[in-house]
Amino acid sequence: MVQPGLDEGVPLEKVREFSLEELLGMAIKAEIGARKFYESLAERVGIQTLREKIEWLAGEEGKHEALLRKMYSVMFPGEGIIFPEEHIGPELKPVARELHDVRDVIELIRWAMKAEEIAADFYGEMERIVITENRKRLMRYLSDMEKGHYYTLRAEYELLLDWEMYSEMMHVGP
Amino acid sequence: MVQPGLDEGVPLEKVREFSLEELLGMAIKAEIGARKFYESLAERVGIQTLREKIEWLAGEEGKHEALLRKMYSVMFPGEGIIFPEEHIGPELKPVARELHDVRDVIELIRWAMKAEEIAADFYGEMERIVITENRKRLMRYLSDMEKGHYYTLRAEYELLLDWEMYSEMMHVGP
Repeated sequence: MVQPGLDEGVPLEKVREFSLEELLGMAIKAEIGARKFYESLAERVGIQTLREKIEWLAGEEGKHEALLRKMYSVMFPGEGIIFPEEHIGPELKPVARELHDVRDVIELIRWAMKAEEIAADFYGEMERIVITENRKRLMRYLSDMEKGHYYTLRAEYELLLDWEMYSEMMHVGP
Repeated sequence: MVQPGLDEGVPLEKVREFSLEELLGMAIKAEIGARKFYESLAERVGIQTLREKIEWLAGEEGKHEALLRKMYSVMFPGEGIIFPEEHIGPELKPVARELHDVRDVIELIRWAMKAEEIAADFYGEMERIVITENRKRLMRYLSDMEKGHYYTLRAEYELLLDWEMYSEMMHVGP
């Protein structure tokens, strides 16, 4: 579980100190981490509409992982992926504990928002690092997708803060 | 079909000239229009990953419609919904023609992006108009969701512009 105060990973200004292989490895690792986080969160969230949204996010991160793996295999054919120890954004781990209260969900969503925001910035930085136009395009794609996730989460987060209304509007409850 | 040059609907600065009933009616009409547009677009798009994304957007707009109808019924109990002639953003109509080329898809996505962007701004303006905190919160929710859609579409749009790469990365093609 992510704990408040945990480090937010490699700062953007340090990104250029890594090789492209390492950066792609970090990106793939982050996508895997995000997918597992969302999958485990979905299993623990009782609110159906929210659970469906989180499952959708898990599926999207899975597609990003596949896209990055493909990009890696095109750029570094035959080479195994390097997974650096460093990570991008708060390192999202699978949610292992039961969630007892909507506040637990809110806290996790807040961390996911942070992770998505940093991922969007990271891909924006990667766009500047890669050379060819089609690689830049792929990085813009990923950056925009993560921005989309960020706003999707922010919408839910905002509404969850008023649990009474959330339950009423989303037909949640007994 | 939306044609280039079609008007973009009620300008934001005119929004305050309408009653809240009318504005909610316009919002509901826009959500219905967007859903039907995405449904018809999904039926005509052969690219599976893109079709799934568009189907997801259609489902989301359907949920927004339900949310707004609920909000309307709470605020104006027993009253039928007023659907003004005016509209928010480019009036998205169901796609009635066959799409022969990726350029046809790109053009429609571009219009959908415009519609989502304007919808996000519209809900932002609605947030300032409604009085209670929970109504403001709902408007922020809708605004953020539409922003999320905008970035999701922008991501696809950017990648579709390089069709060769899109087909390669998304496993599309013969």
